[in-house]
Amino acid sequence: MTLDDLIQRLREFADARDWEPFHTPKNLVMALSGEVGELTALFQWLTPEESAAAMRNPELRPDVVDEIADVTLYLVRLADMLGVDLLDAANAKIDRNEVRFPRKANREGEAGGN
Amino acid sequence: MTLDDLIQRLREFADARDWEPFHTPKNLVMALSGEVGELTALFQWLTPEESAAAMRNPELRPDVVDEIADVTLYLVRLADMLGVDLLDAANAKIDRNEVRFPRKANREGEAGGN
Amino acid sequence: MTLDDLIQRLREFADARDWEPFHTPKNLVMALSGEVGELTALFQWLTPEESAAAMRNPELRPDVVDEIADVTLYLVRLADMLGVDLLDAANAKIDRNEVRFPRKANREGEAGGN
Amino acid sequence: MTLDDLIQRLREFADARDWEPFHTPKNLVMALSGEVGELTALFQWLTPEESAAAMRNPELRPDVVDEIADVTLYLVRLADMLGVDLLDAANAKIDRNEVRFPRKANREGEAGGN
Repeated sequence: MTLDDLIQRLREFADARDWEPFHTPKNLVMALSGEVGELTALFQWLTPEESAAAMRNPELRPDVVDEIADVTLYLVRLADMLGVDLLDAANAKIDRNEVRFPRKANREGEAGGN
Repeated sequence: MTLDDLIQRLREFADARDWEPFHTPKNLVMALSGEVGELTALFQWLTPEESAAAMRNPELRPDVVDEIADVTLYLVRLADMLGVDLLDAANAKIDRNEVRFPRKANREGEAGGN
Repeated sequence: MTLDDLIQRLREFADARDWEPFHTPKNLVMALSGEVGELTALFQWLTPEESAAAMRNPELRPDVVDEIADVTLYLVRLADMLGVDLLDAANAKIDRNEVRFPRKANREGEAGGN
Repeated sequence: MTLDDLIQRLREFADARDWEPFHTPKNLVMALSGEVGELTALFQWLTPEESAAAMRNPELRPDVVDEIADVTLYLVRLADMLGVDLLDAANAKIDRNEVRFPRKANREGEAGGN
């Protein structure tokens, strides 16, 4: 399963159910937002430390995976309907972030003489 | 650039800036939610039809790509910190959705007999 | 029931359940965000026109009222825990928006001679 | 300034700018969601303790008040366009929550017998 396979599978899924007319970017952004809301609700009362241990909580773990999956499905579908390549866009954004947030000054010692 | 490359690049980016302590799942879910909010704002006053043409709007297009990228970065980073495989989770969810939302009645009859 | 009554009732509700330790602004912002996500989900597949008729849909109406209520409860509680006066803050923001978004040019005729 | 005054002021504000056609519930839910995203971003990297002290941070305080105001404006406008009375809806929801989340065992015994 690659990202391209996932894109293709979602196209077929929507087509087989005649859901394409509903999949405007406006509607898909709302669906993405709704799923992120459900994901947020899973973490809202947890301390940061409890959130870091969420996957070792057998009650929480399947819900976290399920909501992460839903967010992924709508993000991938939205990008496909817009014609945006998710990985290219993400990579280009990190390029810009490298300039915007310079890395810390060279750690002496670590670099062994540089 | 594959998804695995992106995960690796984000790890190095956070490590080089000592950002890991901030990257708890609770904080990353909030960051994801904030970026989805910015993406939502781009589409809020558009009609569904205008949203479908967003990428042909030269003023809107770069902002849409930029926000989609930000959402992707935080989702990929969140899944990595939780130890969730995004593609596996998404694929398993479609398996469940295939059962939950059966496809339309067989189209062969439709095509053959109408 | 005034807004002050609602603030007071929410304080007593949280106090009677020992929920105050969970009601940090960070947690309440997440709870607010989760409820807005549920509200968003109710409207995601509707056309703008269908959304305008949502309250005449007997299946949708109670869910809309319920989610609007949840959003209100968390917003009011968040503002109370932060010490922000919601109405003052909103009013001051409209003052700023009056400057930022000037009203349309005076409508001749309407004003009868100006 | 009461909530009714705020509702009225928002009606006049939208009317003076011919914004009513944009203020469908679908669009207003998205605008609300976008503003909650901006509010969330202010708290995303804070610890719960830092979030509780946000209003004593002179850099953060005006932004928090500003985003709370924006969320309030869109929530009030959305409820008005839907014909939902925010305070009635919130109050009725607490009535239901009183049943759903019973308060702790009577504290009198606690206080009297320990």
